[in-house]
Amino acid sequence: MAKLNVIAEPGKHEIIMTRDFDAPRALVFRAMTDPKLVPQWWGQRASTTIVDKMDVRMGGIWRYVQRDANGEENGFRGVYHQVSAPERLVYTFEWEGMPGHILLETVTLEEHDGKTTIIDSSVFQSVEDRDGMLQHGMEGGASESWDRFDDLLKTL
Amino acid sequence: MAKLNVIAEPGKHEIIMTRDFDAPRALVFRAMTDPKLVPQWWGQRASTTIVDKMDVRMGGIWRYVQRDANGEENGFRGVYHQVSAPERLVYTFEWEGMPGHILLETVTLEEHDGKTTIIDSSVFQSVEDRDGMLQHGMEGGASESWDRFDDLLKTL
Repeated sequence: MAKLNVIAEPGKHEIIMTRDFDAPRALVFRAMTDPKLVPQWWGQRASTTIVDKMDVRMGGIWRYVQRDANGEENGFRGVYHQVSAPERLVYTFEWEGMPGHILLETVTLEEHDGKTTIIDSSVFQSVEDRDGMLQHGMEGGASESWDRFDDLLKTL
Repeated sequence: MAKLNVIAEPGKHEIIMTRDFDAPRALVFRAMTDPKLVPQWWGQRASTTIVDKMDVRMGGIWRYVQRDANGEENGFRGVYHQVSAPERLVYTFEWEGMPGHILLETVTLEEHDGKTTIIDSSVFQSVEDRDGMLQHGMEGGASESWDRFDDLLKTL
């Protein structure tokens, strides 16, 4: 299985994650932007994701609620700033447990020989915010979520 | 008159602008967020700013149109992500002439002895985007706009 590559240079505002998927990018883009499919891949396997809002267009709001095995709920939300199928998505991301700490995420899909590379770049308001996200296990969580995404793509 | 201080370290995603104003921050915050006042300070003196949309609340959209001396119009837009009067505003910013290039701006107001320091931090999707903004005279434009803001505060 393809591996997640994570780049977070010291002192920078940015995290760049890249990963290859064995599917054409039109399909990858659809799997990322279909509210019915999001609960099948977003977040960790042990938790349940509920799509509360997902209005995939410029200015549209998204909001997911993640319920963990203990029934505890965490809300995540943001606003779509660019939706250019099948190549680019730009949106903001905020954990409701820490309001006012926003990141700006740009997802670029590149296709080559029927496969797709996802380049997922996040910029944070501060280097401290970025480092905090890394320290809270962001890489492991993202890795598991992209594994689930890979599994989902094989069924579509 | 107080001077604008601009920090843009090489290779970073960020521009930080700071400036002092001789007014309490409740007044400064109001002047920044009142749609009726924005045309009096936003942008350059030689141009006219029209507030098309300005819904100052989490998730609310703003859109300004700037008409220059030749009648040429440029649209700017974004979404408010945090509105915490009188201390913090977070919003996205996009020039409609280059859609999909977004920046995330965090404005913090600090009061001391009845005066206010504005700390305006912008993070861009890439260092190239940030450097492009600097090369297009961002500092001069911002400086003129903050001068106008200073003039406006004296009348309130």
